[in-house]
Amino acid sequence: MRTYLDCIPCFTRQTLDVVRTVTDDPDVHRRVIKQVLSRIAEMDLSQSPPTMAQYIHRAIREATGNPDPYREIKEAFNRLALSLYPSLKARVEASDDPLATAVSLAIAGNLIDFGARRSLSEDEFLREIEAAVRKTITGETLEVLRERIPSAADILYLGDNAGEIVLDRLLVEALPLERTTFVVKGGPVINDATREDAERAGLTQIVEVIDNGSDAPGTLLEDCSAAFRDRILNADLIIAKGQGNYETLDEMDLPIFYLLKVKCPVVARDVGCPVGTPLLVYADRTPRSRS
Amino acid sequence: MRTYLDCIPCFTRQTLDVVRTVTDDPDVHRRVIKQVLSRIAEMDLSQSPPTMAQYIHRAIREATGNPDPYREIKEAFNRLALSLYPSLKARVEASDDPLATAVSLAIAGNLIDFGARRSLSEDEFLREIEAAVRKTITGETLEVLRERIPSAADILYLGDNAGEIVLDRLLVEALPLERTTFVVKGGPVINDATREDAERAGLTQIVEVIDNGSDAPGTLLEDCSAAFRDRILNADLIIAKGQGNYETLDEMDLPIFYLLKVKCPVVARDVGCPVGTPLLVYADRTPRSRS
Repeated sequence: MRTYLDCIPCFTRQTLDVVRTVTDDPDVHRRVIKQVLSRIAEMDLSQSPPTMAQYIHRAIREATGNPDPYREIKEAFNRLALSLYPSLKARVEASDDPLATAVSLAIAGNLIDFGARRSLSEDEFLREIEAAVRKTITGETLEVLRERIPSAADILYLGDNAGEIVLDRLLVEALPLERTTFVVKGGPVINDATREDAERAGLTQIVEVIDNGSDAPGTLLEDCSAAFRDRILNADLIIAKGQGNYETLDEMDLPIFYLLKVKCPVVARDVGCPVGTPLLVYADRTPRSRS
Repeated sequence: MRTYLDCIPCFTRQTLDVVRTVTDDPDVHRRVIKQVLSRIAEMDLSQSPPTMAQYIHRAIREATGNPDPYREIKEAFNRLALSLYPSLKARVEASDDPLATAVSLAIAGNLIDFGARRSLSEDEFLREIEAAVRKTITGETLEVLRERIPSAADILYLGDNAGEIVLDRLLVEALPLERTTFVVKGGPVINDATREDAERAGLTQIVEVIDNGSDAPGTLLEDCSAAFRDRILNADLIIAKGQGNYETLDEMDLPIFYLLKVKCPVVARDVGCPVGTPLLVYADRTPRSRS
């Protein structure tokens, strides 16, 4: 998805919010926002929004000298989600449709996104989980996913955020583990999950975990490692979590199921659903080129 | 008032809103927003917000080739306010405290501000007027104003917007006309009143009307004509309408009564009142320098 002009006021608002969250130093606030404005002014709008988000968060890490400003937030949500994991696992197993429940919980976990929002209370998160269990995803796309899983030889699961990754584990456990690979980011960006979070979530014990070699909050293929590119271009089933993955991969000819909470008006317009919608979308375009 | 970092996302949002209101051409939208971002990146934040607003609206007029994009909106609100004028005049005259009613209506008129908001319905405007008549301004500042009027030798009334200027007339008529001068902008910017609007409002028939020589949405003294600067620096009572005048004059040592609706969180924090407050403030600082 390209960057819309509406993303620009949002980039500037986010930059200010994030840099204020990360440091109290007004000189750093000023320096970072001015640097980001100059960059946006020169931006090629055909690039996807996470390209700018990658730049913004690199600028903030550099200006503050803090290589992982969301470390505590990530750990807090890992801890919270891990404390819920046993009961959620039991609810998936007791469910009439364990796959639907696991998919719904994985989407609910996508609320833990500090790129799109400034804060998330434990209460909000718990309400989202309850809503997901009570009203699980249904429909044709879920049936297509259910049908494809048994025959998929190489399943790639593109994670999104820390904390969320624990709920992803519920869905990973509904997949054939030996044919599933979980993908984390190559380095810290916002509260996106890295290898450390995959270890905390227990994913490294049950499936192969690889990183994509990039610190973009999404999957910018040109910024990923050659090894990861090879994997994604040859996977026969991809589950991609969150807006960032949707925004960066939606124009690719890849067999991707997107699982996300719609969090901004631009993506809402693009997918045709209101902000707040839990979404399962399948995009299987006729392959044109995968080079 | 200096520009706060919170003004920056607001500048970018306003630029996008305004340029879309003025033209449907996406190339112009992109060009103007990028031009404005570059300018903000280089901005001296000790300048007041109207400095940037002046730049933004000049850029929009230049990019669209439209010297007065708000002409129709200005005329529509002049027409609406003129249709209300006779009944409002009667209500001021029938009021227990005509000055308080006129001040309150002049503040209510300040809602007609297309810098701070995208649109204003006739209904909203009528509700604001009714609220102002029902609950008029009271308090010490009003009494100070009431006390100063009879002895003021040179009263300067700094107008703000078209339409609003008709309600300003109600207050002007409560002042000694021969000692009162009404000030409009030197050229079109947003929906700010120019000489044409003062004529439409009938002000030119009752008081001296001058322009300040500037197209900034406020009173940037360094951008105003020498003749206007001389007038404002020597006036002994100034009535200044709207946020723009507050933002540009609040650090000056001048005997100014500000009449405005608080329209944004930054000004709200600066004056210590919530957004939406009808405000009458007097700022009489000990003169330090008027050069």
